[in-house]
Amino acid sequence: MSRTVTLHLDTAERCELVDVTEQVAGACAELVVEHGAVVVASPHTTAAITVNEGYDPDVARDLLHALERMVPDEGFRHAEGNSDSHVKVALVGNAQLVPVRDGHLALGRWQRVFFCEFDGPRSRTMTVTSLR
Amino acid sequence: MSRTVTLHLDTAERCELVDVTEQVAGACAELVVEHGAVVVASPHTTAAITVNEGYDPDVARDLLHALERMVPDEGFRHAEGNSDSHVKVALVGNAQLVPVRDGHLALGRWQRVFFCEFDGPRSRTMTVTSLR
Amino acid sequence: MSRTVTLHLDTAERCELVDVTEQVAGACAELVVEHGAVVVASPHTTAAITVNEGYDPDVARDLLHALERMVPDEGFRHAEGNSDSHVKVALVGNAQLVPVRDGHLALGRWQRVFFCEFDGPRSRTMTVTSLR
Repeated sequence: MSRTVTLHLDTAERCELVDVTEQVAGACAELVVEHGAVVVASPHTTAAITVNEGYDPDVARDLLHALERMVPDEGFRHAEGNSDSHVKVALVGNAQLVPVRDGHLALGRWQRVFFCEFDGPRSRTMTVTSLR
Repeated sequence: MSRTVTLHLDTAERCELVDVTEQVAGACAELVVEHGAVVVASPHTTAAITVNEGYDPDVARDLLHALERMVPDEGFRHAEGNSDSHVKVALVGNAQLVPVRDGHLALGRWQRVFFCEFDGPRSRTMTVTSLR
Repeated sequence: MSRTVTLHLDTAERCELVDVTEQVAGACAELVVEHGAVVVASPHTTAAITVNEGYDPDVARDLLHALERMVPDEGFRHAEGNSDSHVKVALVGNAQLVPVRDGHLALGRWQRVFFCEFDGPRSRTMTVTSLR
C-alpha cells in the first residue's frame, strides 16, 4: 500500500541546493518499496526538487547562477519580492519521481536528489510517497 | 485499480494560467484514491501543467512574463509561429504528479494546480490518472 | 507488479533530441501495463527526457536553440565544460511520466517522447518503469 514519509530540513541561504539523497533513501527504506518509484515533493511554492550531479559542488552553484541569470528580478508585480523564486520552481519542478529497484533508489552513478531552496533561509518539509 | 478521468476547459488568452485545482480534486474524489498520487497530464504540445502559488494572481502573471522574456520569438524555424509555446511546455512540463493522502490532494498551503495555456485561446483537455 | 525495462541508444551530436516513442511503447508492451503510467527516466546528469511535438523536426531544433540561448556557457565554475548540459537537464527534467490506457501510451495526437542529449555523442541508457 502506498504510504508517505515527511522529512524536515532547515536551509541556510536565500538560494541553495541541499543534497537530500540520504534522507530520501532512508524514507524509501522505511516505506519498504521493493520495486516501483517514490515521489519526492516539496509542498512549498518557492522550493523545488531536482535530480542532478552531486559529485562536484560547482554543478549546484552553476545551476543557481544560471537560474539567477535566466530569471532577473525585473518587471515583476507580486509584492512579496520573491517572484523569481516562484518562477524557478515552475522551471525546475516542485516534485520528482525516482524509480526504485530491489528496495533501493535507482539513481545513476552521478545522480543525487536535491532540495532546491529559492527563498530561504527557512524551515522546510518535503514528502516521499511510495508508488508501485 | 488505476483509472483516468478526462477534464475539459476552454482558454481565453494566448498565454494564460488557469487554476484547475477544484476540477483535479473532483477527479481525485471520483477516482477514489485513498493514498498514492494522481498524474495530471496535458495531451497537448503547447499547453503544460504546473503547481505553484494561487493566492496572489500576480504570481501567475509574473511567471508568464518571465517565460516570455526567457523565450523570445526569435530565430525559430518551425513555420506555425508557436515555437515559443513548445519551448515553454518543455520547461514547465506537460504533466505533474500530485501526492494524495487520505483521499485528498496533498498540496501545500499555497499550492494550486494550473493548466498553462501557451498557444490559446483553444478548447483543451487534460487527464487525471490515479496511481497507488 | 512494477517492473523495469532498460533501453540503450547511441547519440550522434553534442545536443540532440532523439524520438524514442517506439522503444518506450515496446517497453510498455513488454511490461504488460493495462492502465496506469510508465516513468521514462534518464540515469544521466547531462541527458533529459521530454514529451513534445514530433511531427515537424523543426520543433526539436527550435527547443535546442532556445535552450542554447537561455543557458549561455559563461560564468560557470564546473571544470568539465558541461555546466550548460547539467542546467538543461534541471530545466527539462531527467524523468517523465506517461499515462497508459488500455495497454498503450496515452500520448496526445502530436506528442512524442524524446531522449534529450545535452553532452554527446555518447552511449546512453534510459529506464521504463511501470506504475499502476
